[in-house]
Amino acid sequence: MTSVIRIFGIDPGSAATGWGVVDCAGARLSYVASGVVRPGRKAAHAQKLVEIFDRLSALIRAHAPDEAAVEETFVNASPRDALILGQARGAALLAPAAAGLAVAEYAANTVKKSVVGQGHADKRQVQAMVRVLLPQSGAGDGALAADAADALAVAVCHAHHRDMRRLEAAS
Amino acid sequence: MTSVIRIFGIDPGSAATGWGVVDCAGARLSYVASGVVRPGRKAAHAQKLVEIFDRLSALIRAHAPDEAAVEETFVNASPRDALILGQARGAALLAPAAAGLAVAEYAANTVKKSVVGQGHADKRQVQAMVRVLLPQSGAGDGALAADAADALAVAVCHAHHRDMRRLEAAS
Repeated sequence: MTSVIRIFGIDPGSAATGWGVVDCAGARLSYVASGVVRPGRKAAHAQKLVEIFDRLSALIRAHAPDEAAVEETFVNASPRDALILGQARGAALLAPAAAGLAVAEYAANTVKKSVVGQGHADKRQVQAMVRVLLPQSGAGDGALAADAADALAVAVCHAHHRDMRRLEAAS
Repeated sequence: MTSVIRIFGIDPGSAATGWGVVDCAGARLSYVASGVVRPGRKAAHAQKLVEIFDRLSALIRAHAPDEAAVEETFVNASPRDALILGQARGAALLAPAAAGLAVAEYAANTVKKSVVGQGHADKRQVQAMVRVLLPQSGAGDGALAADAADALAVAVCHAHHRDMRRLEAAS
């Protein structure tokens, strides 16, 4: 009997934070839920962080995942923009960690390789493969938000990596 | 009768986050407490953020401040370092904001001007003036940590600015 592990994936960003929940039973993956947290543009600085943290914390309580995974943010920005992104990322990382979940981090190339099969895939290829791997993810309104797809991709990546470790341990 | 307002000042940093509590009754300031939160160096990434958030949240519960103030971080670092600093800063900003406190942000020059009288004061002048303005701050082991002094400085800055607003409103 294979136990089901529920993974909470997060794609943090300054303006929008994607999230996605995936169940994995051995190599079998299934879609649970996904979405995007977009703090009010006019909200005060610190208040935006509270929105990210509170929304993700509520989603984690609601979906009760076992583990969390976040993409390592590639920083191709001014130090000022990197700081703002870092603040949002801090609030996003804090939510699963404060809930007691282990938070795995994966480089962007590792996520792409895991989902598409090659590290230099573009964003659209990643999103297309997420829909193939998790057909239910497009079942709602049909269009999966890009940030939600990226969060599901990092959850899928974590599922593959934890499964590989399991196989290695068994061999 | 002048009511006492308690201010929680924060100086966020990648390795250490200074904090300081100041009471202000009109123009009269008094030192309450200060210190530095230093997450374990070997702690996992997300775990460091939890340490900052949990420790500051506990201090805020213990001291019950009315308002919080944070220095706007000047970023003179690589985007990568700015991202790491931003994550720590996000966790630090989140603690007072999640506790329902208004969080004021002040530019470094504004803090220096408010404490020393000029915007281009160096760190040691700021720390010396904090000890003059808040003599009790050096009463413990005699040496006030630099990060704690910076956190007290931003609390003093906020006290001055909110007092100015009060005087303007009364005139």
